[in-house]
Amino acid sequence: MDYEAYFSKSIAALKDEGRYRVFADLERQVDNFPTALHRSGPNQAREVTVWCSNDYLGMGQHKAVRAAMHEAIERFGTGAGGTRNIAGTTHEHVLLEEALATLHGKEAALVFTSGYVANETTLSTLGRLLPGCVILSDALNHNSMIEGVRHSRAEKIILKHNDLADAEAKLAALPKDRAKILAFESVYSMDGDIAPIEGYCELAEKYGALTYLDEVHAVGMYGGQGGGVAQRDGVQHRIDIIQGTLGKAFGMVGGYIAGSKATIDFIRSSAPGFIFTTALPPVIAAGARASIEHLMASNKERAAQQDRVAQVKRRLAELEIPVIANPSHIVPVLVGDAAICKQVTDKLLSDFNIYVQPINYPTVPRGTERIRITPGPLHTDEMIDHLVASLDAVWEAFGLPRSREAIVTVAA
Amino acid sequence: MDYEAYFSKSIAALKDEGRYRVFADLERQVDNFPTALHRSGPNQAREVTVWCSNDYLGMGQHKAVRAAMHEAIERFGTGAGGTRNIAGTTHEHVLLEEALATLHGKEAALVFTSGYVANETTLSTLGRLLPGCVILSDALNHNSMIEGVRHSRAEKIILKHNDLADAEAKLAALPKDRAKILAFESVYSMDGDIAPIEGYCELAEKYGALTYLDEVHAVGMYGGQGGGVAQRDGVQHRIDIIQGTLGKAFGMVGGYIAGSKATIDFIRSSAPGFIFTTALPPVIAAGARASIEHLMASNKERAAQQDRVAQVKRRLAELEIPVIANPSHIVPVLVGDAAICKQVTDKLLSDFNIYVQPINYPTVPRGTERIRITPGPLHTDEMIDHLVASLDAVWEAFGLPRSREAIVTVAA
Ligand SMILES: Cc1ncc(COP(=O)(O)O)c(C=O)c1O
Ligand SMILES: Cc1ncc(COP(=O)(O)O)c(C=O)c1O
Repeated sequence: MDYEAYFSKSIAALKDEGRYRVFADLERQVDNFPTALHRSGPNQAREVTVWCSNDYLGMGQHKAVRAAMHEAIERFGTGAGGTRNIAGTTHEHVLLEEALATLHGKEAALVFTSGYVANETTLSTLGRLLPGCVILSDALNHNSMIEGVRHSRAEKIILKHNDLADAEAKLAALPKDRAKILAFESVYSMDGDIAPIEGYCELAEKYGALTYLDEVHAVGMYGGQGGGVAQRDGVQHRIDIIQGTLGKAFGMVGGYIAGSKATIDFIRSSAPGFIFTTALPPVIAAGARASIEHLMASNKERAAQQDRVAQVKRRLAELEIPVIANPSHIVPVLVGDAAICKQVTDKLLSDFNIYVQPINYPTVPRGTERIRITPGPLHTDEMIDHLVASLDAVWEAFGLPRSREAIVTVAA
Repeated sequence: MDYEAYFSKSIAALKDEGRYRVFADLERQVDNFPTALHRSGPNQAREVTVWCSNDYLGMGQHKAVRAAMHEAIERFGTGAGGTRNIAGTTHEHVLLEEALATLHGKEAALVFTSGYVANETTLSTLGRLLPGCVILSDALNHNSMIEGVRHSRAEKIILKHNDLADAEAKLAALPKDRAKILAFESVYSMDGDIAPIEGYCELAEKYGALTYLDEVHAVGMYGGQGGGVAQRDGVQHRIDIIQGTLGKAFGMVGGYIAGSKATIDFIRSSAPGFIFTTALPPVIAAGARASIEHLMASNKERAAQQDRVAQVKRRLAELEIPVIANPSHIVPVLVGDAAICKQVTDKLLSDFNIYVQPINYPTVPRGTERIRITPGPLHTDEMIDHLVASLDAVWEAFGLPRSREAIVTVAA
């Protein structure tokens, strides 16, 4: 077989379909977030405003976080130097896991190299080792959860998105004593809608399911201490396993789960994606902890984010630019066509110095292509004015449809 | 089902089998490597010498690496703030991937959050997408490769470890035009033996296989520029995909693959473990690049490591302490019993301030339990004297067998 030809042909096919991705080469600038240098060629660089970062609260430039990292580098060095079991557990890992357990009101926590790995290896380990386990998984769950379920080879039941009646019907049809995991997210990142967490807790208690909640797009941002939507809703003690990331609102990289001592010890002792990999550098653990501790004590960033989000949503509604309605910090602006979506974002970049990424299939269903805007505390009033005016101009230029109604659902 | 009881029972079973792992809580000290503070309780901390780190060359405290990280933090901030496609590609990622491609003499490279993820998602993607693919995988391949093969659901053929005749027989039995991947490592980390890479290249060329080589325990340490064993052997241009880690000899965290433009673009465009996860922080990319560039230009660390390794191996041989013979930097000292292995390392820690980790089943076959020692450029003559004398004393205390012969093979 000619592998090279096969790979080239596959790439050509992606290009033909308009699904080939070119990564924007960015350089964020400390003390100048959310501005970044965008390089479009060897000698071409230009300042742009980033409107699609998942460093939702700008913690990626926070002074306390940077200071914690500088200090950790000079004290402990750079990498961990081994797996957690072989020379790779540093005191910073211990402290970070304690902070995460406290954040979520749990007995223990466990850190992974990413939120992706946390989901994949925890779900695949649970599904593989819990005898006769069945996993009930929300239809819109993230790829990392889908892969975890798939790799577990446990039976899988797909739940209608955020639909308690469907979940109840499917749970009720299973033997009560059979091991079952109810796996869902709090904030769904592409539509920005939020799961009925309390309702899921009730169902799980009634039908004997283990609850697994991905709070990746909520930690740092919801709840009095930034513990996520479950904390805000006062139900985090009813969730068995809370999963989160250090890479978004906390401005770092890495992922984790929090739960009971026994649960965490079980995953720690049996999840291959945790065991057989170099631990995160202590400098990352130190930076993440500084970020978490700051956001546990400070509401300022959360309040400012909510304010910016509300402003952007209101201003776009006034201009009848179609935003998918949701109760979260995510502003999905509907375009509905892959090629146009790409053209719109290209024009925003070239003519308005606004960087947003087109979100196309397979990340979202065809026909629901969108621009996903994430306003944060560092976006100024002027930046919002400029964003709104630019979208208005581009909507005009492309003759895109306006809509007086909020778009309530886009599920395909 | 009572999940909590199930998890507790599983943990109890591990403890009964002597397989329960307690992580050593360490704090390495910059300018004092390989010394670390070991905490055994809230107010108990003591200096120990680390003899089992995979920060093989001590780059985790290198001045140039630390400087690059400090600078990156102040310029770009901490995390990347997004996936590679959505706001997470920084110029540091671009530069790191260029450096890695250069290191391995390849057209392109791609960075992942870890070496684990690099293996898992690359192999599972290739095995899943190459039509009719079969993966021939060395029997001692690392868990990350095994999981990648498993997740691909492609047909798998296990090859006898480092056995060219077996590989040829199995390749010859397959249709020439069928897609096949030959997946193996260069340095096997637990025995320290090295694959016959050139032989595999010849077979792959003869039978039309794609070669996939894990150089995780070799990059930075072998070859004129630290490109690994394939570079040392002058065959890296004959390997299709070279995989490596930034977390061991480079002293950081992260993983990568290097190969042709089309190969890398194909994986970049289709591997879920690459696409759906937050990019490594630019500060990690900057630190890793500084480390790679230093080791491309400097042979000093490699020479010092080889010297330390040779000394430890010679001294242990003189005392007839059984070392598994190998041509690499890894010094596996055979104990052969899980409980005794644990007791030996406990005693080395408590009585001699030497930190090594017992390597027990399932990492190595039962009956081949061992201490894995990794001498590096920062271990002094005094430290080597102390290590050797301590092992001698512990061997005496436990009445462990001595052996005049080098142990040639331990495969179960
Ligand atoms: C819902 C969800 N879960 C998990 C992840 C993975 O987290 P991480 O980026 O830390 O790997 C993501 C996105 O990256 C996500 O959107
Ligand atoms: C042979 C081999 N490949 C891959 C890995 C994973 O690399 P990383 O630690 O960067 O995840 C390891 C160990 O950690 C390994 O020993």
